[in-house]
Amino acid sequence: MARRGRRRQAATTVAPAPLGQARNTFPPLELISADEVERIHEASLRVLCEIGMNFLLPEAVQILCAAGASSDDGVRVRFEPEMVTEQVALAPSQFTLHARDPANSVVFGDDWVVFGMVGSPPNVSDLDRGRVTGNYVDFCNMLRLQQSLDAADTCTGHSVEPIDLEVRTRHLDAVSAMYTLSTKPGFCYSLGRARVSDAIEIARIARGIDHDTLLREPSIHTVVNANSPLVYDKPMLEGAIELARHGQPVVFTPFTLAGAMAPVTIAGALTLQNAEALAGITLSQLVNPGVPVVYGSFTSNVDMRSGAPAFGTPEYAKATIISGQLARRYGLPLRASNANASNAPDVQAAYESQMSLWACVVGGINYVLHGLGWIEGGLCASYEKVIIDAEMIQMIRAMLQPTVIDDASLAVDAIAEVGPANHFFGAAHTLERYNTAFYEPMLSDWRNFETWQEDGSLDATQRANGIWKQLLADYEEPPMDDAIRAELTDFVERRRAEGGVEPL
Amino acid sequence: MARRGRRRQAATTVAPAPLGQARNTFPPLELISADEVERIHEASLRVLCEIGMNFLLPEAVQILCAAGASSDDGVRVRFEPEMVTEQVALAPSQFTLHARDPANSVVFGDDWVVFGMVGSPPNVSDLDRGRVTGNYVDFCNMLRLQQSLDAADTCTGHSVEPIDLEVRTRHLDAVSAMYTLSTKPGFCYSLGRARVSDAIEIARIARGIDHDTLLREPSIHTVVNANSPLVYDKPMLEGAIELARHGQPVVFTPFTLAGAMAPVTIAGALTLQNAEALAGITLSQLVNPGVPVVYGSFTSNVDMRSGAPAFGTPEYAKATIISGQLARRYGLPLRASNANASNAPDVQAAYESQMSLWACVVGGINYVLHGLGWIEGGLCASYEKVIIDAEMIQMIRAMLQPTVIDDASLAVDAIAEVGPANHFFGAAHTLERYNTAFYEPMLSDWRNFETWQEDGSLDATQRANGIWKQLLADYEEPPMDDAIRAELTDFVERRRAEGGVEPL
Repeated sequence: MARRGRRRQAATTVAPAPLGQARNTFPPLELISADEVERIHEASLRVLCEIGMNFLLPEAVQILCAAGASSDDGVRVRFEPEMVTEQVALAPSQFTLHARDPANSVVFGDDWVVFGMVGSPPNVSDLDRGRVTGNYVDFCNMLRLQQSLDAADTCTGHSVEPIDLEVRTRHLDAVSAMYTLSTKPGFCYSLGRARVSDAIEIARIARGIDHDTLLREPSIHTVVNANSPLVYDKPMLEGAIELARHGQPVVFTPFTLAGAMAPVTIAGALTLQNAEALAGITLSQLVNPGVPVVYGSFTSNVDMRSGAPAFGTPEYAKATIISGQLARRYGLPLRASNANASNAPDVQAAYESQMSLWACVVGGINYVLHGLGWIEGGLCASYEKVIIDAEMIQMIRAMLQPTVIDDASLAVDAIAEVGPANHFFGAAHTLERYNTAFYEPMLSDWRNFETWQEDGSLDATQRANGIWKQLLADYEEPPMDDAIRAELTDFVERRRAEGGVEPL
Repeated sequence: MARRGRRRQAATTVAPAPLGQARNTFPPLELISADEVERIHEASLRVLCEIGMNFLLPEAVQILCAAGASSDDGVRVRFEPEMVTEQVALAPSQFTLHARDPANSVVFGDDWVVFGMVGSPPNVSDLDRGRVTGNYVDFCNMLRLQQSLDAADTCTGHSVEPIDLEVRTRHLDAVSAMYTLSTKPGFCYSLGRARVSDAIEIARIARGIDHDTLLREPSIHTVVNANSPLVYDKPMLEGAIELARHGQPVVFTPFTLAGAMAPVTIAGALTLQNAEALAGITLSQLVNPGVPVVYGSFTSNVDMRSGAPAFGTPEYAKATIISGQLARRYGLPLRASNANASNAPDVQAAYESQMSLWACVVGGINYVLHGLGWIEGGLCASYEKVIIDAEMIQMIRAMLQPTVIDDASLAVDAIAEVGPANHFFGAAHTLERYNTAFYEPMLSDWRNFETWQEDGSLDATQRANGIWKQLLADYEEPPMDDAIRAELTDFVERRRAEGGVEPL
């Protein structure tokens, strides 16, 4: 058994070394010129002014029209460009999302980078069971992995939908599980006012703060998708307004798949994305000036032969990088995703995800949603992919660490000491640094072929299977103050007894 | 059978669409400051001046000392900094490597990008046979794949070593196969003067040019590795001098694995890399002022627990990007690699390769060696990895295509035409563009899960297995002028009859 040895053993005991929240000090890539950024900006303002956007919640239409927008039919809202730019300018460029454990709070904006778990797949898979329908056991396991992996900064929805839970009370069980099984920042779906209100209260209780503090300290967040093209639906808008009123951040993310819900050109899809995102952000600022928001980019393309969505494509990478330019133009934190369209945690999942992750890195993206576990274009959460993504993210985070160039690191003395035709293994310069010089992987196997073969020739996906099982076996639920736990339980059980919330 | 359908069929008939040679117009990433680049430059000149470097060929020592370098023992050569900078400045910033088919010639330098096949593994693997010792059949198959795949621009060595060929004449068979099975630029190992001389003659004959033209037109190239730290060996130097005398380009690539053959710090490893590369380039310019060269970066790190080499690591990415800054400082084309250390064409191979490829993209690297097929840190060529890499490279090439921002692409009229709560599938704007709007993959499978499952749930590596077999089945040897073929055969058979070249 000794042979199984090194790497597997490492996996059983060592999660990736904590690096703290990542900062991306790489100069962001400017893929198009500043003038071209302005052209997208102006085209999107024209869309909002001349075409308008449908808001399927009368309250939202009233808020917008009271501030100077217009609507002929109480649904289609047209925006004056100045109103949009003035409101968007009120949103902060940086904010902190507070966690139950302050050490897990994360900063959005500027050069900070946040990686979130996968959100919202209806299915879950692992190598043992294959693909099964989402359920509460797997939902909780994903929260345990989120808590165990340094690569995961936030919960970003139900990492897999717990379909076996009663719909009326699912949000109560799901959000309270987020705040008990993990100490990292939580999430609520923007599915109507009542669910959001319950979720905000759970976050407040779990953090042990009063309501005034909650208003000042973002403690839970959501994603509001436009139903592209040019529609915000009623439940999403209700939730967005409720969160804005409570000072909680919303990620406004248009669902602009080029060729399907958006124009087939990257420029056109980004024009639509920008229009829809700015419209949502405008509403949030009218509800609560200065409330934190995130500009969300999800622009990708479809397979034009089948209409199937594709992710991690060249077009996705370009759209993500240009979205970074747009978000910086507005001084807003930007969200994109670690996306792929593979049906398995395989090579395709890895290279499409790397295309997504690197686009986020060079584009200066602040919030990488679906960072861990997403496959199948979001229709499935994969246990093995969670581990694969954790490794890829930790590699990126290690790469973002500063490179020291000084006399000691330039090592001319060490080169002189070793001289030609020798090696540096035993040099003092090496011995002083070798423990921390390089990133140590959790999943990658660098043993030679023969040793790897004798150990069963396990590929990386098979090794990932062993690692998530070990992480779950090692998981311990984080402690929670007894009074807080009691208050949380009381709230959830009271709301359950009241019948929860009507299905949509 | 219809269900196997779409993707597999595509693979059997459609190699990735030709995009022409790639240009990388992304502004290169400056990971360290210009002052820090100067510090590496100055430290490496100090290494060459104060420590010196061993040249194991007396002729090379004589050439260097005749130009102002010094040596006490006829081996260790110390360089005056001015001599190095003056000679390096003579090397051109751009040159063309001419192919047998002029359409396959490639440009090195500036914003041009060249992707080469894997070079030099002793083993080869596929999913059917597993890993076997290199041989001539597989060597030729790799050349056929090189010819068939648009992602492969050049041959960069023996894609797998044909160990079954007689050593004395192996170079004759190998290099003539490069120029008959493929019309893309060829390569020779720098293993002594005689082999290089034979290879140059084969390239000349295959191109159908006279010797004077060959002197002006680079037609074959090599990589010369330093035996880091601080040694160039005799066969490599003989080859480098012979190629320089014939105006053929050499890629000078130090083998600087941080922690083993180089200092454990990235700054120190790059200092050593830079010293060794500049020393080799200086020699080439003294032999033939203005001869084309490529600055080679291979700096990676080892696993400090085992000493095993690692590739595609965070440290590799940073070293590659900073090497780009160094090469631009000297105005030289830069080579790096599509490297990984995985023992299988699996997820690890994919994500480590993507780390390497993206570092090349953002670092502005001109020549991506080992672009297709390398696994196991270079100890094995994988048929499936050739296909995986071809897909990844074509995705990168598609991403490097310019993004058009104009009135038509901004698509405000199309957005108005479609309006809210609709879709763009049937819009005129879409129909005019959908055939060419997006990159179409060769390997990636975007079908829905159920269709994919009914088709056998093949993962990307398994699909790659089918694709390379189909490419080999479809391969047709490119035509060659009868007179040229006769001359080539005569030369090879004459040299074979003469006994080839003594083993080293």
